[in-house]
Amino acid sequence: MYRSHNCGELTISNVGEEVLLSGWVQKSRDLGAMVFVDLRDRYGITQLTFSDERDTELMASAQKLGREFVIQVEGKVIERTSKNKKIATGEIEIEVSLLKILNKSDLPPFTIEDNTDGGEDIRMKYRYLDIRRNPIRNNLVLRSKVSMEVRNYLSNIEFLEVETPYLIKSTPEGARDFIVPSRMNGGEFYALPQSPQTFKQLLMVGGVDKYFQIVKCFRDEDLRADRQPEFTQIDCEMSFVEQDDILEVFEGLTRHLLKKINNVEVGEFPRMDYAEAMKLYGSDKPDIRFDMKFAELNDVAKNKGFKVFDSQELVVGISVPNCASYTRKQLDKLIEWVKRPQIGATGLIWAKHNEDGTFKSSVDKFFNQEALAQWSEKLNSKTGDLMLVMAGDIDKTRKALGELRLYMAETLGLRDPKKFAPLWVVDFPLLEWDEDSERYHAMHHPFTSPKMEDMHLLSTEPGKVRANAYDLVMNGNEIGGGSIRIHDKSTQEMMFSHLGFTEEEAKNQFGFLMDAFQFGAPPHGGIAFGLDRLVAIMGGQEIIRDFIAFPKNNSGRDVMIDSPATVSEEQLIDLKLKLDLK
Amino acid sequence: MYRSHNCGELTISNVGEEVLLSGWVQKSRDLGAMVFVDLRDRYGITQLTFSDERDTELMASAQKLGREFVIQVEGKVIERTSKNKKIATGEIEIEVSLLKILNKSDLPPFTIEDNTDGGEDIRMKYRYLDIRRNPIRNNLVLRSKVSMEVRNYLSNIEFLEVETPYLIKSTPEGARDFIVPSRMNGGEFYALPQSPQTFKQLLMVGGVDKYFQIVKCFRDEDLRADRQPEFTQIDCEMSFVEQDDILEVFEGLTRHLLKKINNVEVGEFPRMDYAEAMKLYGSDKPDIRFDMKFAELNDVAKNKGFKVFDSQELVVGISVPNCASYTRKQLDKLIEWVKRPQIGATGLIWAKHNEDGTFKSSVDKFFNQEALAQWSEKLNSKTGDLMLVMAGDIDKTRKALGELRLYMAETLGLRDPKKFAPLWVVDFPLLEWDEDSERYHAMHHPFTSPKMEDMHLLSTEPGKVRANAYDLVMNGNEIGGGSIRIHDKSTQEMMFSHLGFTEEEAKNQFGFLMDAFQFGAPPHGGIAFGLDRLVAIMGGQEIIRDFIAFPKNNSGRDVMIDSPATVSEEQLIDLKLKLDLK
Repeated sequence: MYRSHNCGELTISNVGEEVLLSGWVQKSRDLGAMVFVDLRDRYGITQLTFSDERDTELMASAQKLGREFVIQVEGKVIERTSKNKKIATGEIEIEVSLLKILNKSDLPPFTIEDNTDGGEDIRMKYRYLDIRRNPIRNNLVLRSKVSMEVRNYLSNIEFLEVETPYLIKSTPEGARDFIVPSRMNGGEFYALPQSPQTFKQLLMVGGVDKYFQIVKCFRDEDLRADRQPEFTQIDCEMSFVEQDDILEVFEGLTRHLLKKINNVEVGEFPRMDYAEAMKLYGSDKPDIRFDMKFAELNDVAKNKGFKVFDSQELVVGISVPNCASYTRKQLDKLIEWVKRPQIGATGLIWAKHNEDGTFKSSVDKFFNQEALAQWSEKLNSKTGDLMLVMAGDIDKTRKALGELRLYMAETLGLRDPKKFAPLWVVDFPLLEWDEDSERYHAMHHPFTSPKMEDMHLLSTEPGKVRANAYDLVMNGNEIGGGSIRIHDKSTQEMMFSHLGFTEEEAKNQFGFLMDAFQFGAPPHGGIAFGLDRLVAIMGGQEIIRDFIAFPKNNSGRDVMIDSPATVSEEQLIDLKLKLDLK
Repeated sequence: MYRSHNCGELTISNVGEEVLLSGWVQKSRDLGAMVFVDLRDRYGITQLTFSDERDTELMASAQKLGREFVIQVEGKVIERTSKNKKIATGEIEIEVSLLKILNKSDLPPFTIEDNTDGGEDIRMKYRYLDIRRNPIRNNLVLRSKVSMEVRNYLSNIEFLEVETPYLIKSTPEGARDFIVPSRMNGGEFYALPQSPQTFKQLLMVGGVDKYFQIVKCFRDEDLRADRQPEFTQIDCEMSFVEQDDILEVFEGLTRHLLKKINNVEVGEFPRMDYAEAMKLYGSDKPDIRFDMKFAELNDVAKNKGFKVFDSQELVVGISVPNCASYTRKQLDKLIEWVKRPQIGATGLIWAKHNEDGTFKSSVDKFFNQEALAQWSEKLNSKTGDLMLVMAGDIDKTRKALGELRLYMAETLGLRDPKKFAPLWVVDFPLLEWDEDSERYHAMHHPFTSPKMEDMHLLSTEPGKVRANAYDLVMNGNEIGGGSIRIHDKSTQEMMFSHLGFTEEEAKNQFGFLMDAFQFGAPPHGGIAFGLDRLVAIMGGQEIIRDFIAFPKNNSGRDVMIDSPATVSEEQLIDLKLKLDLK
């Protein structure tokens, strides 16, 4: 036996007991006549004491213990003289009578402390040591808890977890697939799923009624910061439902998680249509923890002689609370910020709503006090606020101002990680124009059902057709998205044709789904949550990497195991493949 | 809204309510003046009634309903005149007032009935229809329940579910990996995990203490019947444990599952060492639901003038209950059976223990009544039993007799699928000799720790070294296996060297693990269960395919989606690969 207790459970009530503990040496303090060792495991830290007086030999062994040594001790629980109220075991310590070194440790390449001295790269290479640190370990504990709560909640309302296959078929639509050569079927390939989309729809055709799965998905994309080639989805689908049924179930789930995990009560989630979200926040995933809604100023700012505005589609602004005191330098910095290529604005107009009720702007030459008061009225600015205004074509300007809004909120500390502001964004467009291929692509995916009342626009103004598609947004992040699906063959065929599939391509790639629709497919719809991001946000952070046990870096490499790597010539021969590296 | 209730929940207490139901037409009976329709969903069947008298038009629509049409009905719950006690809803029916066809259905290629007329191939191609059938759907429900129970049980005793990566690194040891070309790292490949073995060990090094994961694993093997290229493991690992700790925890889990799912109480699991299992059952996964243990007859059967026995290493037999009445024809069939190449025995000797206490054997020329009585004593045969005896070299003969033992039990109906007989087989050999490569391979895997007391044999008689390795066997199937792992670098290095790894190969493939062992690896061990098989056995069957939503066939093909398939030239160019099909 290695232990009678773990390192987090002994309290004053155990005083007098003989115990056996195992764990890691967190640190030791050698006071000459005594050595104190903090023994650590996943559950906590227990203080061990050794004294010269009690046992010289044991004391000598204790003095030789290095950080991260794995040891086993036997001893008696005694009450501490100086108690540590901060930890659960802080009232007791162990008077050690036997010490066994289970494994030595080299000096770790970084300190195993909450605030480590290790940089990102070295921590990734020695991820197993990083996991010993409380912040990372707590993230994994949180993730495990969230997954369990999701499963319990959904199982309790009759969802079945069904495992769908990982070795599926490549479909060129959407992002790039990872493919897997088949040895038994030379020259053919499986693909790893980007999502179990078609399988969950087939489960609905199969009468499973309510499906979920917490499942790995794969996308071979050029990785932006904080994207992973493999990621985890909470994937869900229901039969005989309309959009409202789905929103209700998954609002319930999300509320349950926030209550159970974060102990936060959230009321009914607001719903906003896509068009409104773009108009008020310049984003389809608005952060509504704070206000600063957009107001459009075309009426009051155009045709006042300021050419920069006059020639543009849209003049739009926000009122930033309590920033009228910004210095010239601060304002110039803001202007520089919006001109960076990532934001891509051509400029930024500011107008201070001074404490005395007057206005001071960067365009005083064109806009007098009365004119600026009109801006103020639209933007709902108060004394002490700073109005920030942009102009340009609608989509780009909204997007840039949306970024600026987030930046200002970040600067002002308005993005409180302990506050949770969920929101449904609904009525997404069915299609979006793709500049590169010069055709419409499915905004969600090709299985999303158009709104019946917009169907007549499909041939004439496809960009205006709305879909039965929805996103769950939290704190400015999309944490889930889904749609009501097409469930009849003719609509699906029409959709494929609008997306530029030939009949043959549609049949070749999705023939099995179209076949399935001929045998009594029920109306159905679903949603998928990004577990990595959901957990990160619930953990008060936005970097998903810290919530994944063994993440990959931005080049898709696992630097710990050094993968991907070359394989043997025999393996390639078996697979009937040759490298073509030129 | 599509439904107020599902098709399995209305009872006599709902009589008088107006309800809305949706589902599939299971069947309809047209009695001329009335039509009865069985409406089906995942939850059950509800009877609908239409009558000419009540509504001629509605009646006409009902008459046109085909099997598997998806319909929605509104109506009143009324008490049935002739009740069906077999189903939960059998006391009521719905007097339909509104009928809406949600989707039509072509005639399914096989009947959606418990006993379908569809063969294996067609059911696989239309798996989504097969899933509509109760037997398959119930299997998926069972699987979902088993997974939830596993998660709840392990979470309650502080196991964390941690997701390990799917895109890892290929290691030539063991079975073949599926590999995944990396586009971002041209010429390099990920591999899909055969198990998360090294990652779970790294989690132990990381102090996770108790880990589990229900996880897909992948093996590119030539598929034997009822093997799948992707399969699911319940993967577990614990720190600071000895073998007994692990057996205790997972015996607890298994007992919990049998109680919760099958409502079967099982006592303490017997433990048997590998050597004993081979000696008594000719198998490392004995089915102990029935007896028929082996008895060795060398003492009493050799050197009696029967050359077939005299020249062999081992003469061994079983006593089959109540088969002394077997006819010559039946006995000849048994002899043919053991001679098949799959069994590979050269022959079979039989001896009947007649009802009158005499014996009659196929070798009466060499063995008189007294001699056969000695066999009987060894084999513990009773009057009416049939003794079956084989001779040959030890390993092959035991194996063949083990197969015959199972065959006889099957024939006699002794393999009761509702009976559960779990068993720990322990003390497996560390190494096994591989004829092809003419060297020792790790029997479990290269991370398994040898028994300390056998270490001295490693250089001289490696085949005799036992490992701290164990299997959980149920009803003749291995449902789980694991070991205590090596946790220090020098032992692991020695192990790799004994397995024929060069230092460079070991470093290249497992350097990260050896590195990890230098930073305070705790003693640890674990186990992995095959979920597919576990669920199949709990479901009273042994064919795993019926417990997988979308299985592949024996050529590794998914015949429903037609995968694997060719990919586009562009995909291969992106991956810097060429086919080499010659």
